[in-house]
Parts: sequence; structure tokens; C-alpha cells
Amino acid sequence: MHQRSVDVCFTPELLHLFDLTESVVVVIDILRATSCMTTALANGVDKIIPVASLEECAALKAQGYLAAAERNGLKADGFDLGNSPFSYMEDRVKGKTIAMTTTNGTLAISRSLSARQVLVGSFLNISAVVHYLEQQPYHAVLVCAGWKGMVNLEDTLFAGAVISRIKETFTPDTDAASIALSLYESHQNNLLAVVKKSQHARRLNNLDVHKDIEFCLQHDVYSIVPVLQDGALTGAKPVNA
Amino acid sequence: MHQRSVDVCFTPELLHLFDLTESVVVVIDILRATSCMTTALANGVDKIIPVASLEECAALKAQGYLAAAERNGLKADGFDLGNSPFSYMEDRVKGKTIAMTTTNGTLAISRSLSARQVLVGSFLNISAVVHYLEQQPYHAVLVCAGWKGMVNLEDTLFAGAVISRIKETFTPDTDAASIALSLYESHQNNLLAVVKKSQHARRLNNLDVHKDIEFCLQHDVYSIVPVLQDGALTGAKPVNA
Repeated sequence: MHQRSVDVCFTPELLHLFDLTESVVVVIDILRATSCMTTALANGVDKIIPVASLEECAALKAQGYLAAAERNGLKADGFDLGNSPFSYMEDRVKGKTIAMTTTNGTLAISRSLSARQVLVGSFLNISAVVHYLEQQPYHAVLVCAGWKGMVNLEDTLFAGAVISRIKETFTPDTDAASIALSLYESHQNNLLAVVKKSQHARRLNNLDVHKDIEFCLQHDVYSIVPVLQDGALTGAKPVNA
Repeated sequence: MHQRSVDVCFTPELLHLFDLTESVVVVIDILRATSCMTTALANGVDKIIPVASLEECAALKAQGYLAAAERNGLKADGFDLGNSPFSYMEDRVKGKTIAMTTTNGTLAISRSLSARQVLVGSFLNISAVVHYLEQQPYHAVLVCAGWKGMVNLEDTLFAGAVISRIKETFTPDTDAASIALSLYESHQNNLLAVVKKSQHARRLNNLDVHKDIEFCLQHDVYSIVPVLQDGALTGAKPVNA
């Protein structure tokens, strides 16, 4: 197998600079879209249809889908679900298809569609994501969803965590990859403390968010990988995982 | 004085997300545009007119200015000067006004014009830049020139170095500022070794570039700060520096 590379895109605003055609993209929105997607599919949700706008999400709700919508960190009015992973463990979601739009995560997905394949990663399924990447032949681009175009801490930390685990099989040969890896190596033993000081935690400083953050920073709670196919995410199990 | 903030813009591609109107911008292109500008003005160059395009630079050359042009790390054909700081110490530049265009640095300047003031920073004048920022009342935005829109290591390291020196007087309250500071703190004792492994060093892997890199990573060789006024950079000396 040829040597594969791993790169990091710090925000979807920079995605136009990347050629994704020979790469698998891992979309990262730790707080909290991709943590929710992983939680949902691991807890019996059948499919997730990520959409970029509230309007598309409302249209799917009108067709009978459960609809999840988050803007500015809060559940948008008139939708069934918001952005807390705990709400994706409830019985009412099992076996359902959920239409979902979030401030950053679903936008990152919609801008990554030129890739060979689009996966969703979170600390909750990091080992499964790493295993999935290693089992396929393409380069990897780790796409941080960020916050409204800006770089964020928790997504960059996760990108660094993935690189730290695949750097023997994927060459991290860009400065962006080096920066993410260095950040992770500096903070890997105090991730929760660092993320609790992030802009996201300060922006939504309340008990529920801190509970969500603690949940989302757990490693390997789930062994599935959300994979985008025909416009919907379903949970794949890596072979031999 | 109200509490000032310091933020980092990782590449000019993200500048549209920043409101610069109450900020002083420090443009950073360590390898090598802003190191050259600092060197030039410290060595007797009268003014530097930064321009975004080769065409503008050629037009100023036709008017009689010395003209410096770099593209893809190399001197562009038909111009007087390239992008090595050593060429800006020569007698032929003293007392002259130089028109300059570079791949990344002059673009970063041209996109920062909505700021209160635009400065140019490099390790060569880091203490003077820090002192200048502390003596004025505005927020600081450290604008990394990057490489063709991509994040780079050496500019991010310098942003972190500035933050490490001003974090008592300017609040680094964004994740981008935290990431730059963390990167600098991890590598401050081996900056040269890290930058020698950067994409820039690998891209232009030859003896002259390594000589330039060693020069550009020296701290406080010069005590002037290039400041943009009426379209040209001149060397300011911070008060009490």
C-alpha cells in the first residue's frame, strides 16, 4: 500500500483549499454534533440525515421525520431534539430516522461531499474511527467544524488525538497536522480541564453543558463509525474492531 | 485603561471573520516577508510600499522604485530583490523606497487595512513589537500570513510567543489564542529545530534557506517596528523601548 497522509482542516472556511478527491474525511464537532450523531447511531437510531439549513430540516420534519436543530448552542424553536447527547439515548429515537442541522457540524459535512467518503468522529468512538481509517486505502483529512468559521480547541484536540494514533501509518506532513498533534500531546492528560476553559464552555456556561462536555470527552464508549452514504449517516462497525 | 484582548487569525483566509476596527494588527510572515521588512527598515531603507500583485510591483519599478518580488519562495524574474533578509542589508538599499510583493505577507497586509493600525512583526523585533502594543490602547490581532491560505508553523509560533509576553495586559480569550500559546510553550526551547522541520523548510530545502531560517529565528536583533502609514511601512521606535 502506498504511504497515506493525514492532514487537518482547522475550519470549514478553509475547505476550499483542500483536494478531497483521494481522501476520506473525518468530520469533527466534539461539542456537540458529532458526539450526538455517534451516540444516536450507537443507541438504535436508524439513520441521520444531516442538512445545512433550518429550512431543510423543517421540511423533513413536515414529511414526518424526527427533526433535530441547534443554533448558537441551543435547541432551535419548533424542533424535536437539540444538541445534547443524552437526548439521543431516549426510547423515542430508537429505530427512527432523524433530520439534523447544527451551527457548525452539518455545515462541515455538506462542504466535504467531494471526498471519497465522509465519516463522523468523536472521542466517544475514536478507536473505531482510527481502525476504520487504517482499513481503507485513502488519505485522511480531519475536518474540524470549529465555531462559525473560527478555529476551536476541542475539535483541534481531537484531530491531534487521531494523528497521535495513526502517525505510523499515515504521514502527518503538514504544519496544520503538526500543530494539532502538538496541542494534543501537551494536553492529553488534562483534556477535560482544558476543554472546560474553552470558548464553547464559557459561551454556554451552565450545568447541562458541563454534563455534556464530561460525557463527550469520554473515550471509546461506542464502537460504531457514522458513515455518510446516499445523504444519510448510518453506523458502520469497523472490520475486526 | 479597559482590558484589552489579543486574538490570532491563523491565515488571511479567515480575516473576514474578524472585526479589526478597534484593533492593532500585527502581520506575521516569519519566513520571510516580515523578517525582511524589519531587516530592511533597521538597515537604512527609508520606506517599503507593500503591494499585493506582481503587476503593481512592476508598475512601481517602472516609476523608479527598487522592486522586491517573491512568489513560491523564490525571487520573481525581472525584479531587484527577493525574499532573503541578507539582501536587505546591502548598501544599494540604504535610503531607498522599496516596492514589495510576496506570496503571503503583503496579501495579509492588504487584507488588514480596516484595522486601527497595521504593524509588522518578526522574532527579529519581537520585544519592540510587544512594547509598541503595550503602549497603545487598542486590542491586538496577530495575523499569520500562512502559506497560500494554509496555516503554518512558524507564524503560529510567533503569535504564541507574542501572547506569552503580553498575556498579563491583553486577555487571550479565544481558542485560537490558546492554541498558539500552547504551541509556543511546547517548543520555545527548540524553535529552530521545529521550524527546520516545517513545510516551508522542506519546500525550499537548500543551504541559503537554512541560513535565512537561522537568521529569522534570532530574537531582538532590531528595535524598530515597521508601521503602515499612508500605504507605506516606516520604522518606528517604541517610546521608552
